[in-house]
Amino acid sequence: MADSLFAGPDATKLSIHQTESPKDLLPPDQLKFGRSFTDHILSATWDAKEGWGTPSIEPYKALSLDPAAAVFHYAFCCFEGMKAYKDAKGNVRLFRPEKNIRRLNTSAVRIALPAFDEEAVLKLLAEYTKTESRWIPEGRGFALYLRPTLIGTEPDLSVSRPQSALLYVIASPVGNYFGSSGMKAISLEACSSPVRAWPGGVGDKKVGGNYAPTIVAQETAGSRGFQQILWLLGDPEVPEQQYITEVGTMNLFVAWINPETKAKELVTAPLDGTILPGITRDSIIDLAQERLVPKGWQVSERRVYMTELKEASKQGRLLEVFGAGTALIVNPIKSISWNGEVIDCGLKAGEEVGEITITMKDWIEDIQYGEVEHPWSVVV
Amino acid sequence: MADSLFAGPDATKLSIHQTESPKDLLPPDQLKFGRSFTDHILSATWDAKEGWGTPSIEPYKALSLDPAAAVFHYAFCCFEGMKAYKDAKGNVRLFRPEKNIRRLNTSAVRIALPAFDEEAVLKLLAEYTKTESRWIPEGRGFALYLRPTLIGTEPDLSVSRPQSALLYVIASPVGNYFGSSGMKAISLEACSSPVRAWPGGVGDKKVGGNYAPTIVAQETAGSRGFQQILWLLGDPEVPEQQYITEVGTMNLFVAWINPETKAKELVTAPLDGTILPGITRDSIIDLAQERLVPKGWQVSERRVYMTELKEASKQGRLLEVFGAGTALIVNPIKSISWNGEVIDCGLKAGEEVGEITITMKDWIEDIQYGEVEHPWSVVV
Repeated sequence: MADSLFAGPDATKLSIHQTESPKDLLPPDQLKFGRSFTDHILSATWDAKEGWGTPSIEPYKALSLDPAAAVFHYAFCCFEGMKAYKDAKGNVRLFRPEKNIRRLNTSAVRIALPAFDEEAVLKLLAEYTKTESRWIPEGRGFALYLRPTLIGTEPDLSVSRPQSALLYVIASPVGNYFGSSGMKAISLEACSSPVRAWPGGVGDKKVGGNYAPTIVAQETAGSRGFQQILWLLGDPEVPEQQYITEVGTMNLFVAWINPETKAKELVTAPLDGTILPGITRDSIIDLAQERLVPKGWQVSERRVYMTELKEASKQGRLLEVFGAGTALIVNPIKSISWNGEVIDCGLKAGEEVGEITITMKDWIEDIQYGEVEHPWSVVV
Repeated sequence: MADSLFAGPDATKLSIHQTESPKDLLPPDQLKFGRSFTDHILSATWDAKEGWGTPSIEPYKALSLDPAAAVFHYAFCCFEGMKAYKDAKGNVRLFRPEKNIRRLNTSAVRIALPAFDEEAVLKLLAEYTKTESRWIPEGRGFALYLRPTLIGTEPDLSVSRPQSALLYVIASPVGNYFGSSGMKAISLEACSSPVRAWPGGVGDKKVGGNYAPTIVAQETAGSRGFQQILWLLGDPEVPEQQYITEVGTMNLFVAWINPETKAKELVTAPLDGTILPGITRDSIIDLAQERLVPKGWQVSERRVYMTELKEASKQGRLLEVFGAGTALIVNPIKSISWNGEVIDCGLKAGEEVGEITITMKDWIEDIQYGEVEHPWSVVV
């Protein structure tokens, strides 16, 4: 196929049709993640003959698709999760949006959906965010969640590359997850079967197929009193081989005393194809390199085996463990149930969050809400 | 949730609304798999409060879904592929339909979609097939392909069990794939990365997420002149560890002389969670047990390593290799490219199909088209 098929959509041709019946805003304390949506949808169609069509912002509406559309049968769907923030001056800001749009393109190509011009989609996204700016709740912790989505729409049951597709963005205002009560540390159940992702699979892409298979395991862990699953890889019969990949839909970070160097070390799983290359993950690594390494910390991307974690906990070397993702930035972890034992993750009695965890949250929020000027935060 | 939520849909309440503008039938030689559809759609909605709603057969129409519907984001979708046949007396027949409906339920439960009453859905499917019977093309090799599909429809971006779902069936008349030219043996490229499925994954379920990630690899193999991919498991760096799982979207059968017993043996991969439990696969195993074992054959479900296949070929012990699935019943295989070599699969010069392969096709078609009475073939 010609490259021109993947040039576009043309942001200069954007048509905007504003709704004539704008919805009422919900009070900030009633916002639930991903349940209520703004007034408009940004969309652009693609087909294999003409490439990308004219993008539009229209009143939020249902999608009308043939029951044979590829997305319903073969999971031709990928997405992104990102947020728009309102700063103290009323500016609208995005956080490293080029990273999300790049990752969406990477996900699309992996599952035979059309590539697109990232600069153009960034411009469209900025325009959409401005159109919906009245929906961005004010205050730290509040944001407008943006959900770029790409689906295969061709009505064809043959298992093949969809000849038509739809790129769209919807938005949902989101509240301060932890509310006024502050952060709350969670308990994890480590799980070696089912597995979330595997070498040669799609665990490093944000494709729909990674998610539906995780729900039942998550519910089962929930029924046993665990808030999230810690996804492991390695033979379920051989505990010594089991290593950490992700937690729930977040990347995982471990802060401990390295047993060899005796230095403080912040460790996370490497980008080996089985974990999502999180943008919060990347930001934490960068900030740690810049601000923790000068204070004597090591920062490492490498496999962490459960036996190592257990040993560190027993020896009092485990300082903090936290999940990292767009939804919460960081989520402190209290303990991990694994192989018949409970691994204590280093929080002191009565403590819900460790120093490194809360510091990372503050550093990133300072940037996201424009309290510190930083190239990662883009005013639209 | 109460079990009553998963009782239904109630087949006795089926409402039928026939189209007032029936489409023209396509000439049998113009039928393409999964591209043209019949006049009606069978559907039933489910929600977590009321359970299954009233099923209906209505004119074929687009689905209208919120852009936040779970299926677009997290691949809450599973399906079945099955066929309706017209026998010489004009009866409409299904082939082991209870197996497909059972498997759909199993797939649904694995990805947190609602279970249903299999007897009721079988009745609805029979009713739908009768409604669409004018669309079943006559003649051996022709059939009406039925596509039961179940999707999560709730507009909610939280990664959780969808609180609403839609079960539907559409149908596409299909031709004789091989046409008048007879069968044609295909060449495979064995692939150890990317990987189709993994222990603890969903490779044994017919869920959408198994399909989109296979397209690019399939296209790449196609560009090198191979018709299908042979999906392997085992370390990509260690050829000795690589074993066969599936071929394209089919199960794989190998007929060879067993090196130890010196008997003829029909071998296929075991149901270890990484391969789809094919209904054609199951039928072939049963027929082989019944009709080949008395003639001295062994029938085995076990791992076949690529090194074993290569050795059998070199020693002249490899008799036939074929894929098995609903679309073609059997698909003869000429050769397999693996680890820098081409494994010859035992067909004689000029031969496109081996004796066991064609015999299996004949046996199964005899049953499907009602030429031999058999409990597997159900007149609706």
